[in-house]
Formats: sequence, C-alpha cells, structure tokens
Amino acid sequence: MYIGRVKGTVVSTIKHALYEGRKLMLVARLNLDGSETSAYDICIDDVQAGVGDVVLVLDEGSSARQVIRKRGTGPVRAVIVGIVEEVTLTR
Amino acid sequence: MYIGRVKGTVVSTIKHALYEGRKLMLVARLNLDGSETSAYDICIDDVQAGVGDVVLVLDEGSSARQVIRKRGTGPVRAVIVGIVEEVTLTR
Amino acid sequence: MYIGRVKGTVVSTIKHALYEGRKLMLVARLNLDGSETSAYDICIDDVQAGVGDVVLVLDEGSSARQVIRKRGTGPVRAVIVGIVEEVTLTR
Amino acid sequence: MYIGRVKGTVVSTIKHALYEGRKLMLVARLNLDGSETSAYDICIDDVQAGVGDVVLVLDEGSSARQVIRKRGTGPVRAVIVGIVEEVTLTR
Amino acid sequence: MYIGRVKGTVVSTIKHALYEGRKLMLVARLNLDGSETSAYDICIDDVQAGVGDVVLVLDEGSSARQVIRKRGTGPVRAVIVGIVEEVTLTR
Repeated sequence: MYIGRVKGTVVSTIKHALYEGRKLMLVARLNLDGSETSAYDICIDDVQAGVGDVVLVLDEGSSARQVIRKRGTGPVRAVIVGIVEEVTLTR
Repeated sequence: MYIGRVKGTVVSTIKHALYEGRKLMLVARLNLDGSETSAYDICIDDVQAGVGDVVLVLDEGSSARQVIRKRGTGPVRAVIVGIVEEVTLTR
Repeated sequence: MYIGRVKGTVVSTIKHALYEGRKLMLVARLNLDGSETSAYDICIDDVQAGVGDVVLVLDEGSSARQVIRKRGTGPVRAVIVGIVEEVTLTR
Repeated sequence: MYIGRVKGTVVSTIKHALYEGRKLMLVARLNLDGSETSAYDICIDDVQAGVGDVVLVLDEGSSARQVIRKRGTGPVRAVIVGIVEEVTLTR
Repeated sequence: MYIGRVKGTVVSTIKHALYEGRKLMLVARLNLDGSETSAYDICIDDVQAGVGDVVLVLDEGSSARQVIRKRGTGPVRAVIVGIVEEVTLTR
C-alpha cells in the first residue's frame, strides 16, 4: 500500500460488470514528505473518496480483488481502501 | 491501470491460440499531464483501438486474463480495456 | 524481502477484518549501506516493531498473506516479518 | 511483454527439470526507438532465438509458465515467445 | 531472473518454519557489464552460495516457492538458484 492524493477522474469505454456504475479515480503516489511523485494509478474507489483527498491505495491485484468482491475475482489491480486521517513521522 | 497512447503495432512469430488473429499494440505510458514516458507495454487489444488513441491499459496478468478469456487463463499480461473519453484533473 | 526502517504510522478509515486492531507502519526502504531511499511501503506489523527499528519487509502479496493468516487470504501486500539484528557486508 | 535484443547466454549450476537442456538467454530490454535500456532478463527461450535477434519477451510468471508447460507450473518468470519481424511506429 | 553478487548476510528475528536453519543472503543485482546496481534482494539460498559469488536469482514468488518446496507454498519471494559459471555477451 502507498499514500496517494486523488487528482481527478477518468471516463472511458471500459465495459465489464465490475466497472458498471463505478468512477475511475486518478491517484498520484505521494512521497513520505507529502509531495507528489510522477507515479499514479487508475483506481476503483471503495470508500467514497473525493478529489483532493489523501488516501490509502492497495496496489496488488489479489488484494484489490478481495476488497472489491467477496469471491476475489475481477479485473482490478488498484483500489482506494481508506481515507488517511493522520500520518505520524519520526525523523 | 494506466493511461497510454497507442504508438504502433508489432508483427512477430509468436504462436499461441490466444494470439491468433490478434494484433499486438505498442502502447506508451502517459504521465498525468498527457506527456509520454519511455515506459511501454505490448498489449492485446480488447476494444478495437487505433494508432494514436488514448487508452486504458490493464497491466496485471490475472486481471488481463479475466478480460480476455472467461476462464481466466492464457499467457497475457497487458490488455487495452477501454478508450479514454475524458480525463478531469484538479490541481 | 528488503531491509527497511520504520518511520512512523498511518491512521485511516480502512475497514477490513484483517486490519482491525492493527497498526499500519510506514517503512522506508534502505540501501545496502543503510541510507534511506525514497521508496516506502505501508506495512502490517507481525513482530511488534517500533519506530526507528530496522526491519525485514516481505513485499509480495502471496507471501505476506501466508505470514499473516494461515489460510493465506486477506488484502495485504507488505508485512514486517522480523527485526534486523545484524547485517554483515563484504566489499 | 516488451521488445528485447538477445545479448548472450549464461551457464550456471541451476538444477531443475525445467532447465535441463535449455539455454538461458540474456535479453536487454529495448526502448520504442530500438535503443537498449540497462534493464534485462535472463530468459528461457521458446522459439530458437539467436544472439542479436530482436524478440518478444513475456515477463510475467503465470504467463511464462503457461507457455513453457501445459500444466502451467515451473519456476520460470521470463520467456522469449517470438521473433519480432516488424515494428510499425507512428509519431 | 537476474545475475547478482552475494554481498553479505542478514540475521533477524524472523520466525517461520521455512526460515529455520537457513541463512538470509544479501544479493546485489548486477548490470550486464558486471557492475553492481543499487538494487538488491534478501534471498534464501538454495545452492550453498558464498559471499562474493556471482549467482542467478529467481525473483518471483510463485517460482521461488516451487524451488524451495515441492508443494509450492511458503512466504518467500527471491531465491538463489544457481552459481553463474560463465556469461557470454556479444556486442
């Protein structure tokens, strides 16, 4: 998992039962200091995140499938699994 | 998933039932600002994409297999799963 | 597996049985010379590690699931599996 | 999959039924413009490729296993699955 | 798989049947010209490698598990599977 910031959304012609009625979110990966990297994922949102939110992204297919569907199937790799409420860093 | 641009095609001697009659597409990975990175994938096309199209690429093997074949098997890692119609980014 | 240093913790709204009562640890990946890289993982802790500890991180989903749960399921990718006691390097 | 160039071979003490009688090929990953990157894989060859050949490399374990063995097992991650005959790129 | 050089060992509190009595080896990933990169893996050793040896590393979980255990389970991602005896490179 990594910490990301929701940057926007994508609309596409993708057609698969898993994606019906779901928004695709663009999430930029953050460094530990909160700055954005150039890396990003297009994620399914499991927690009603909004643009600008700092979120937890689970970026492994098997894990993502278990979060989205109980039987653990579906073509999905990255899922927003939580809103980040607090990050405590020690130097 | 990431956003890519179809750059061209590859013809090869690959022989596997999954690849019969399918074009292999070269897709460059795009940054969030739409510029191209040097990263790319050779993808199976599931949506009749053409060269120049901006597309969604699902780049995880298990997911790709579920899109291409109902029983979820086949030697494939990256699939074009949609044409991108709109990207909304907030700064 | 890689060697990391526990940098802090994350509190989030993640809701999944696997995460109940577990702290999420921020672990920075270390180079072989002990310096920190900018790469990190958000890990489940299996060994009661504290902030500042140098630890072993198992960063593959299937392995992580086998460590955390006997039946090898659960949405988890990276786990702290040990405290590092000694690193012996030869030049 | 990516496009690579066969750079050479490796001889080692590896002992596993899958590797008996098979050459291990060093394949450098190519950029879309045909230049070599510093990334490489040690691959099993499924198509009788020779040094200097430009090839398709399937670099995902599950896919590679399905190409090499019908029952889809074996400790292999990267396989040369085709000789590249033509790359058509549009700017 | 990649070519690596054994740089040292790690002692930790990891507790799992798979790791009992096994040394954890630090292996630096090599470039094709034999120079070391900053990338490394902590590996289980399947071939009695020593510090300084140039080795083959299988760095995919499913493959690694098949090498280490016949039933293909265990929390392991990277294994030293052979000593490199000869690398032949053509320019």
